[in-house]
Amino acid sequence: MTHRAEPPTGDEPPLLAAARGVEPSRVPVWFMRQAGRSLPEYRRVREGISMLDSCARPDLVTEITLQPVRRYDVDAAIFYSDIMVPLKAIGVDLDIVPGTGPVIASPIRSDADLAQLRDPQPGELDHVAEAVRLLVAELGDVPLIGFCGAPFTLASYLVEGGPSKDYSRTKAMMVGAPELWRELMERLARISAAFLTTQVRAGARLVQVFDSWAGALAPADYRASVQPHTATVLAAVGELGVPRIHFGVGTGELLGDLVAAGADVLGVDWRVPLDEAWRRVGGGVAVQGNLDPALLGAPWPVLAERVREVLRAGGRVPGHIFNLGHGVPPAADPDVLARVVELVHAEGLALREAGAERVADEAAPVR
Amino acid sequence: MTHRAEPPTGDEPPLLAAARGVEPSRVPVWFMRQAGRSLPEYRRVREGISMLDSCARPDLVTEITLQPVRRYDVDAAIFYSDIMVPLKAIGVDLDIVPGTGPVIASPIRSDADLAQLRDPQPGELDHVAEAVRLLVAELGDVPLIGFCGAPFTLASYLVEGGPSKDYSRTKAMMVGAPELWRELMERLARISAAFLTTQVRAGARLVQVFDSWAGALAPADYRASVQPHTATVLAAVGELGVPRIHFGVGTGELLGDLVAAGADVLGVDWRVPLDEAWRRVGGGVAVQGNLDPALLGAPWPVLAERVREVLRAGGRVPGHIFNLGHGVPPAADPDVLARVVELVHAEGLALREAGAERVADEAAPVR
Repeated sequence: MTHRAEPPTGDEPPLLAAARGVEPSRVPVWFMRQAGRSLPEYRRVREGISMLDSCARPDLVTEITLQPVRRYDVDAAIFYSDIMVPLKAIGVDLDIVPGTGPVIASPIRSDADLAQLRDPQPGELDHVAEAVRLLVAELGDVPLIGFCGAPFTLASYLVEGGPSKDYSRTKAMMVGAPELWRELMERLARISAAFLTTQVRAGARLVQVFDSWAGALAPADYRASVQPHTATVLAAVGELGVPRIHFGVGTGELLGDLVAAGADVLGVDWRVPLDEAWRRVGGGVAVQGNLDPALLGAPWPVLAERVREVLRAGGRVPGHIFNLGHGVPPAADPDVLARVVELVHAEGLALREAGAERVADEAAPVR
Repeated sequence: MTHRAEPPTGDEPPLLAAARGVEPSRVPVWFMRQAGRSLPEYRRVREGISMLDSCARPDLVTEITLQPVRRYDVDAAIFYSDIMVPLKAIGVDLDIVPGTGPVIASPIRSDADLAQLRDPQPGELDHVAEAVRLLVAELGDVPLIGFCGAPFTLASYLVEGGPSKDYSRTKAMMVGAPELWRELMERLARISAAFLTTQVRAGARLVQVFDSWAGALAPADYRASVQPHTATVLAAVGELGVPRIHFGVGTGELLGDLVAAGADVLGVDWRVPLDEAWRRVGGGVAVQGNLDPALLGAPWPVLAERVREVLRAGGRVPGHIFNLGHGVPPAADPDVLARVVELVHAEGLALREAGAERVADEAAPVR
């Protein structure tokens, strides 16, 4: 993907324009986990229904995905699901335990355990496709973002048996049983790719691959044992022509490797300024991010100035999609998120210009 | 502190030589949390005694600190205590809950809450000084490392009320109530400095300041709201002439700022190779680290090669103290740690040379 300085186009959704580095009609904004526990209407419809059950019901998926789009003037919907859903669909015995996260009945520790993992069969992801089709019909011009977990993040849950602080079993397998690891990652790549391409074929116009925990890895290990498998997933949707966002938390040391895996948009957390992240990878991508979600509890004038800083930094990059640096915290106030959206839309383009001008000024003496 | 290429000195403990960038008689090695749950003898003496009670008993502190020194041929003992101990000593109502961590009865959220924090009074840290004196008498030539928590990491527990995933209340106070934040941090800096200087005056020959969670901060926030207060702590022990290690997890974006706070040795986790970390900060310090503790569960030949890699990278830095990139996991096998120590001592100096030669080779065409 090349970035050209084209004039704003009125008819292309801002999200898609920014993703390909074309100046959008307004700065696009959405929030990771915008559909979720921070919304009272979400908590209401989820009452008495487990996470995985809610993901299996196209009517609920549609309702929950639309909730933040109704409430905020966001530039994208993100498919309400979970990275574990395709594993559940092929019969892996797992649950998503409130307050804990994914819990695996029989963690994968040996060749024999791999039998749990096979390619999704025709029909097993039909509820996903159906929900996407319902959504696309409702969403009109607002693009739907499809998503999946990257193989490493999925593997970390499957090998540890649940969430982990240090991923010690996962890393020990990665370096100590490289053939088992490769087979595990190849299977997971095919499963995630199937989940993601199902969403795209049914109408998702952009995708995000979450390698949430890749930041726990040393760069050399990431490149040797993880990146090739994420690349498989990204290539599968690349063939379908939709832009691909690649995101992980704490990946400052891996940014170039995340892009090299095949991303069009680099998702960045709050630890690295957007323009610095862009320079670090050598350009050639759009960026997404990166307001620290912990700052949503700060007084509005302070928060507003942080939003503006992000927009200025984004102005020094050809394409910027405004987002948080990680998911919306459950305790976040939806009214604050609404104000953030308003601010991004009201001041975004002007602040992009101001940010870009500052670069020109700084660069001047060198010329 | 300047680094000179001096010949090995037989009489200076390797830890202290490496800390000031002088070639040691062997590569020094110790492990963060080397005294702790991974040792059966530790679990035995702690039976029925709470963490904070054990820290208040000089006899137990001495026994527990010595346990890994007896078991492994490590080049340092680290004072067995907890970063919350000086807060407990001044009467803050807190507990360290097994499996959870520090829990604060009345979290600090307002000016009034600050009344909990005052300078330690004469006598309140006597049990610390007594334990250090007992230890120094037992340790002979093995240096004792004193330690404390940096103000930010302490503040995160006090403000959140316990461990946190996102530090949202802490960050909201930092940016939203800067005067309250400054007062909190100033008080914590004085408390940590008192804890640390007590250890040094009683005989600790090197110190480590743990800002374990500083990596959660954006660099601009770290510099504006955290670094000056950590600098207060580091300066207080700097006046006493002992080398200072400064360490935090996931601090790849902050390494230069950690050094600028006043460190002689930069503690590095496994995400950044040691020589890269050293280049990034512009040299002028020794480095400590950085084997990924999650790899302790890998097969020995794989683990041994990782240890050698760390030693080679350390060879490209004037002073290297071998350590893990974070604490010893409770499930770690002590026999594996013993083999790591043996390997570091047996091959360390040769691998330092090999690492340094590779740099010379790589640099050759440029000359």
